[in-house]
Amino acid sequence: MADSDREKAANGMANLSVGDGTLDVKVEESEDFVDPWNVTSSSAKGIDYDKLIKKFGSSKIDDVLIERFEKITGKPAHHFLKRGIFFSHRDVHQVLNLYEQGKPFFLYTGRGPSSEAMHLGHLIPFIFTKWLQEVFDVPLVIQLTDDEKFFWKDMKLEEAQRLAYENVKDIIACGFDVTKTFIFSDLDFIGQCPAFYQNMVRIQRCVTFNQVKGIFGFDDSTIIGKISFPAIQAAPSFSSSFPFIFNGKKDVHCLIPCAIDQDPYFRMTRDVAPRLGLPKPALLHSSFFPALQGAQTKMSASDPNSSIFLTDTDKQIKTKINKYAFSGGGATIEEHKANGGDCDVDISYQYLRFFLEDDERLDKIRQDYTSGELLTGYLKKELIELLQPLVRAHKERRQKITDEQIKEFMTLRKLKFDY
Amino acid sequence: MADSDREKAANGMANLSVGDGTLDVKVEESEDFVDPWNVTSSSAKGIDYDKLIKKFGSSKIDDVLIERFEKITGKPAHHFLKRGIFFSHRDVHQVLNLYEQGKPFFLYTGRGPSSEAMHLGHLIPFIFTKWLQEVFDVPLVIQLTDDEKFFWKDMKLEEAQRLAYENVKDIIACGFDVTKTFIFSDLDFIGQCPAFYQNMVRIQRCVTFNQVKGIFGFDDSTIIGKISFPAIQAAPSFSSSFPFIFNGKKDVHCLIPCAIDQDPYFRMTRDVAPRLGLPKPALLHSSFFPALQGAQTKMSASDPNSSIFLTDTDKQIKTKINKYAFSGGGATIEEHKANGGDCDVDISYQYLRFFLEDDERLDKIRQDYTSGELLTGYLKKELIELLQPLVRAHKERRQKITDEQIKEFMTLRKLKFDY
Repeated sequence: MADSDREKAANGMANLSVGDGTLDVKVEESEDFVDPWNVTSSSAKGIDYDKLIKKFGSSKIDDVLIERFEKITGKPAHHFLKRGIFFSHRDVHQVLNLYEQGKPFFLYTGRGPSSEAMHLGHLIPFIFTKWLQEVFDVPLVIQLTDDEKFFWKDMKLEEAQRLAYENVKDIIACGFDVTKTFIFSDLDFIGQCPAFYQNMVRIQRCVTFNQVKGIFGFDDSTIIGKISFPAIQAAPSFSSSFPFIFNGKKDVHCLIPCAIDQDPYFRMTRDVAPRLGLPKPALLHSSFFPALQGAQTKMSASDPNSSIFLTDTDKQIKTKINKYAFSGGGATIEEHKANGGDCDVDISYQYLRFFLEDDERLDKIRQDYTSGELLTGYLKKELIELLQPLVRAHKERRQKITDEQIKEFMTLRKLKFDY
Repeated sequence: MADSDREKAANGMANLSVGDGTLDVKVEESEDFVDPWNVTSSSAKGIDYDKLIKKFGSSKIDDVLIERFEKITGKPAHHFLKRGIFFSHRDVHQVLNLYEQGKPFFLYTGRGPSSEAMHLGHLIPFIFTKWLQEVFDVPLVIQLTDDEKFFWKDMKLEEAQRLAYENVKDIIACGFDVTKTFIFSDLDFIGQCPAFYQNMVRIQRCVTFNQVKGIFGFDDSTIIGKISFPAIQAAPSFSSSFPFIFNGKKDVHCLIPCAIDQDPYFRMTRDVAPRLGLPKPALLHSSFFPALQGAQTKMSASDPNSSIFLTDTDKQIKTKINKYAFSGGGATIEEHKANGGDCDVDISYQYLRFFLEDDERLDKIRQDYTSGELLTGYLKKELIELLQPLVRAHKERRQKITDEQIKEFMTLRKLKFDY
């Protein structure tokens, strides 16, 4: 995909015609809001990712970076990169420089276990992280922030732990290599690793209430658990938090693939790192997976009709897509044939963009839908036939996961890498 | 000691003549200030402890409570109780009721390791806790808040840990029974005990920034480590934080002997406990050990001349007392003989009150000093001869403590009690 296409895609489902003065003004007036708990956009086309890059001060993933990925790994770039689904980064060139010098990094990603059933959107960082792990052959740590969910949601601590355990199954089902991957839940792990707690404390000493207030929107009525939590999400960015993996080495660089809404945590982490004499983590940011009803907001795990869940049956997938997937087509067949469909708002097309790996086929669909030749119904059918076996296979892999396997992934241990 | 005497003593070194209108007004105008980091009084006679009881909402230790102690344990009350050195409490009757019903409590005390050398004042809670452990035969947990010191002081984390380790030696030298005592440093222990971290998190969920702001005087520029720290000092109040001792039992009541400046932490803890379905800790509060220079402030470990340190030589003890111990005697011998000395401000007398166990002898000294028969020099000599062997014996016991012994005290393990 050419830079301009990717720019369009990174602009995301927004893709505003910037030549139009009226629209321009509208964009200026309507601020998107993105933090770890709320993502809202007043535009029907979703978040303006270019504006977000400017606002957050990150860098756009451009052709140069993608070519470096391909050159260094000797493999084609993942379609999430080529299609601008991962669209923004911080310091990835630096991590790749070090990698080329024989100083490999480690990967860190995570999940807040807010519900038992994960949806397709939750898979995005894990699918991409798995690819990164495969092509770079590096250690990976995956944090389940069950303490965070306990602070933010109305649930018992034991329930947060149970959800974390259930989510770990879905994560393992993505196919991570147990010899390269350590998965942990905060509520279990922090009480097993003094080095991790000590890094939490070091970070908590560098950050004031004023700072987290500004970054996370806390106020005086915020519970103290939430106030100190950012340090807990920051701590895995440092290799010294995992002495059993890195043998006490403090300078192994970290690369964090995550959705862009998690960036506030890591802006804070990157601010703190030099004061602790530790390397700043690098980041790869993904855009949001849209809800079936449209790109205006992030999906909600609490609304079963807002997305395809990893527990859905073939029938549920079919019904949901046919009934709820927002169409970018014309109001009538005649109108559609005359004006064509709008891929940028059509949710079936957008989902295909995430999951249909075949670039040529996706491009053909885009052309034929845009020209009006294909109807929305065709895109829905294509998507249903793609997702049904994908979800079915995930469920099968998940079902086979044993308690022993989970225990292995979650045991503090040396991975296959020597330090 | 009669109630009225103890009241005077509890009024402390203050002991104001309440009949004097002028003084009364002065007391109303000059508020003492007591929180875990600052103790200040504008009165030359120190903190007004009766006012503090009213302000904190605790209860005075009266003859009824002391008689119950003696009745239940079958042993004479400790002179710290009889002399009003421990002068205030919360819910101790309730804990004693349960004890009489065969439901024994556990003891919890602690120390913030801010310096390597501990002084005599630091021993007070440990001497008293040791007595409580002996007469009640119950488990004891001792927390070293090295994380707190790291947050509050300008020191490296490793230095806070080192100070904790050095302080543990002084604590063990007080003579605690290793089969009944678990000593832990936060920076080491929290990463070894998921149940403790989980209780921290439960507490942190019940307390807002507004609350800690009010209790501890935090503001927007306070680091987030300090803001969440109160939960860490609260957590040992609950038996469920130590599953290896209490076998997972959540309802073993806790009694906390501590200096009154630590009460804000436990007011918060007692507020949170019922919301967690856990028993409120009971408390026994001590007054402050005065500085050699006088009772106006708490001693400072950073000023070597403000107190007798547990590392002082015989000669240092002699010199410091002779040179710095504030005298309540007359300006000249003649004046002293005519008007007598003032025990309530004389530091040598006050130190004897803490460390001279013989009630009759102390009483005789009081009478003879008050009448003017004894000069300050005599009190100083008496104190020097009492403290030199006491500190020498402490140093000898401390020197003999091995790393293995320390390790044993600090190992997570079952104590000699079955649950």
